[in-house]
Amino acid sequence: MQTLWDDRYALRTQNMKGSTIRELLKFTQLPDIISFAGGMPAPEIFPVEEFGEACLRVLKEKGPESLQYGMTEGYLPLREMIARHTNLYGIKVNADNIMITNGSQQALDLIGKIFINPGDRILVESPTYLGALQAWDAYNAQYVAVPSDFDGIQVDHLDHALRTGPKFMYVLPNFQNPTGVTIPLDRRLRLVEMADRYGVPIIEDDPYGQLRFEGNHLPALEVLDDQLRGNHECYHGNVIYLSTFSKTLAPGIRLAWVVATPEIIQKLVMAKQGTDLQPSTFTQIVAYEVSRHGFLEKHIKRIVDVYRERRDVMLEALQENMPDGVKWTHPKGGLFLWATLPESINTQDLLKFAVEKKVAFVPGHSFHPNGGGHNTMRLNFSNAQPEMIKIGIKRLADSIKDQL
Amino acid sequence: MQTLWDDRYALRTQNMKGSTIRELLKFTQLPDIISFAGGMPAPEIFPVEEFGEACLRVLKEKGPESLQYGMTEGYLPLREMIARHTNLYGIKVNADNIMITNGSQQALDLIGKIFINPGDRILVESPTYLGALQAWDAYNAQYVAVPSDFDGIQVDHLDHALRTGPKFMYVLPNFQNPTGVTIPLDRRLRLVEMADRYGVPIIEDDPYGQLRFEGNHLPALEVLDDQLRGNHECYHGNVIYLSTFSKTLAPGIRLAWVVATPEIIQKLVMAKQGTDLQPSTFTQIVAYEVSRHGFLEKHIKRIVDVYRERRDVMLEALQENMPDGVKWTHPKGGLFLWATLPESINTQDLLKFAVEKKVAFVPGHSFHPNGGGHNTMRLNFSNAQPEMIKIGIKRLADSIKDQL
Repeated sequence: MQTLWDDRYALRTQNMKGSTIRELLKFTQLPDIISFAGGMPAPEIFPVEEFGEACLRVLKEKGPESLQYGMTEGYLPLREMIARHTNLYGIKVNADNIMITNGSQQALDLIGKIFINPGDRILVESPTYLGALQAWDAYNAQYVAVPSDFDGIQVDHLDHALRTGPKFMYVLPNFQNPTGVTIPLDRRLRLVEMADRYGVPIIEDDPYGQLRFEGNHLPALEVLDDQLRGNHECYHGNVIYLSTFSKTLAPGIRLAWVVATPEIIQKLVMAKQGTDLQPSTFTQIVAYEVSRHGFLEKHIKRIVDVYRERRDVMLEALQENMPDGVKWTHPKGGLFLWATLPESINTQDLLKFAVEKKVAFVPGHSFHPNGGGHNTMRLNFSNAQPEMIKIGIKRLADSIKDQL
Repeated sequence: MQTLWDDRYALRTQNMKGSTIRELLKFTQLPDIISFAGGMPAPEIFPVEEFGEACLRVLKEKGPESLQYGMTEGYLPLREMIARHTNLYGIKVNADNIMITNGSQQALDLIGKIFINPGDRILVESPTYLGALQAWDAYNAQYVAVPSDFDGIQVDHLDHALRTGPKFMYVLPNFQNPTGVTIPLDRRLRLVEMADRYGVPIIEDDPYGQLRFEGNHLPALEVLDDQLRGNHECYHGNVIYLSTFSKTLAPGIRLAWVVATPEIIQKLVMAKQGTDLQPSTFTQIVAYEVSRHGFLEKHIKRIVDVYRERRDVMLEALQENMPDGVKWTHPKGGLFLWATLPESINTQDLLKFAVEKKVAFVPGHSFHPNGGGHNTMRLNFSNAQPEMIKIGIKRLADSIKDQL
């Protein structure tokens, strides 16, 4: 349809790309498809009953307040709870360091809004979280991509990348999206030291850190940065830390948070006022009610048990079914693993054949900001049930064998 | 606190201003203050019980779905319901024309994101909705301001403004925020004709249109634009229409919508993917459940009765208490009226004295994109109870008299 709007799009829309993943979600909803494509939690273990009880309690005790306008930075008791939780990990913050966002995606957008000028370089892992690239493409960011291996970002390549003068560095240290890999302590230490030496601040995105299936929790980059400054009793603010309730409570309530200095929080709040005024008062108070009194910790244990089993089933099915030349990561937590196929296979082409066999994945190419990864794919193991994972991986292996 | 982030803010943050209103909200929460400053609905008539029933029903019947990720454009049954509602007003659209946003503020931001290049001129009424200015300041928009009077935007001044080549025009035709005035039919017709003659598309922001206390509903600009094209059976898309559940259901659920062509909706969806992925699945399904079966229409009648009484009480109190030289609008709906004081009074200075007398308002200056309005103020009549309105207006009149 022709309208007066047609020639009026902003220049920045030229850089906006629809999400491959969101597009894929549409046809993964076709009947009989087993999808490893999305990043969806297991819906059958959502705390539906606890939400029901919390909704009733909130509406009974705080009905009008929960439906009214609220603060841009978020509901104070929820921010205080997040601050207490953050303190457990050795980062000394209070509610003034916390802002609630509509999912971490909004944190990425607001960070883009207050920090990125057109052409600014952002240092990222390659592959990295597609949503960050989507958020920052709209601000016409450029990317300096540092390759990663089975231990995450290759710090040996950092020196060169840091010399290009990036505005900041964006890293997902735990069970990374898309690869599922975790950066070990020695690399974390070197990464923080080098960022400090070059004066480059860090965005640490940690949506999955609590979903660890095995091994010990590793200190966050922000903790290591504070230790580097000799006083880990105090948050130094060079690392902005992001986390979310999407993978622990539920993604449908759209609640995540930013940890930053009060100065940065104030800028983010100003940006959020113009962006969407505030997070939902209702879902915030309900999330607070659901999470208190230790429920969240118990519930996370349940999620970890379920996802660990699904990961194991997927790893075993890969081992049983995949032809020679296919490699994959062994995530110690989170929702994803990453497979690398023989060079001769392009996973964007493979997807068509896979969907004919009723299985879906995300081709790895789009996670690479500056190209590459044509023979890689991301596989989600949290959403499908174990027996479906077995069947799905068999179908996927068959599709690959057909193309070899 | 000094951090590596300090000198890294984007150039656009220089144009971002905190919301005077949001700042004011903080000290209007002091005890004993009667606040006419916010734009808050009356909390005592929120449909708390209906929300409780809907939450339980949704969690029982669609628990996992309601807590899971959903579509970026919004929950299909809700979009279909909004399309049916829109059709009642003579605009023939379907769900493909509707996108759900986190309040209308997000619609304004996403419109800025896909349409505004730095320096683009936007034609606005003066005064106009502060939130639109905040949203578009972040995209470095310029404003062409057309003055308004007791009948809204002065169409006699439109010709000159349209010649400056604005990218689009932004108008609130019903019970405008901040003035409370409504554009009569003859002006609407001229406005649409002139916009068409100059080829300038329109954003029609209509958060309050359903809250009419008296007189007949006037056709929306988008209806008049379709009629101008000779076929009002079909939506022509030159007018993007915005409305919201914030003033009819509750603002705390953050749900509003955009009506536009499917092409524009697709661009907005792409922008929203990078901005915050999707609206809350849970609040959308709950809002849908609360609204169906005619509840919303009944509830709006109740809101109208309550707000009409509060408006009447405020008009009467103004009449009784205000000194000579103070004028105000007589809104036929909505939440606000607008007062103009003698030239000698600066309402930003007055506010300090008013707060000492325990009453608050919003100084009118900040609603004027290019300056002006130093002796004006916005008064909200929806939030305070009638007896408080009487006392508050008396206090406000006393503050003004003290300054004369």
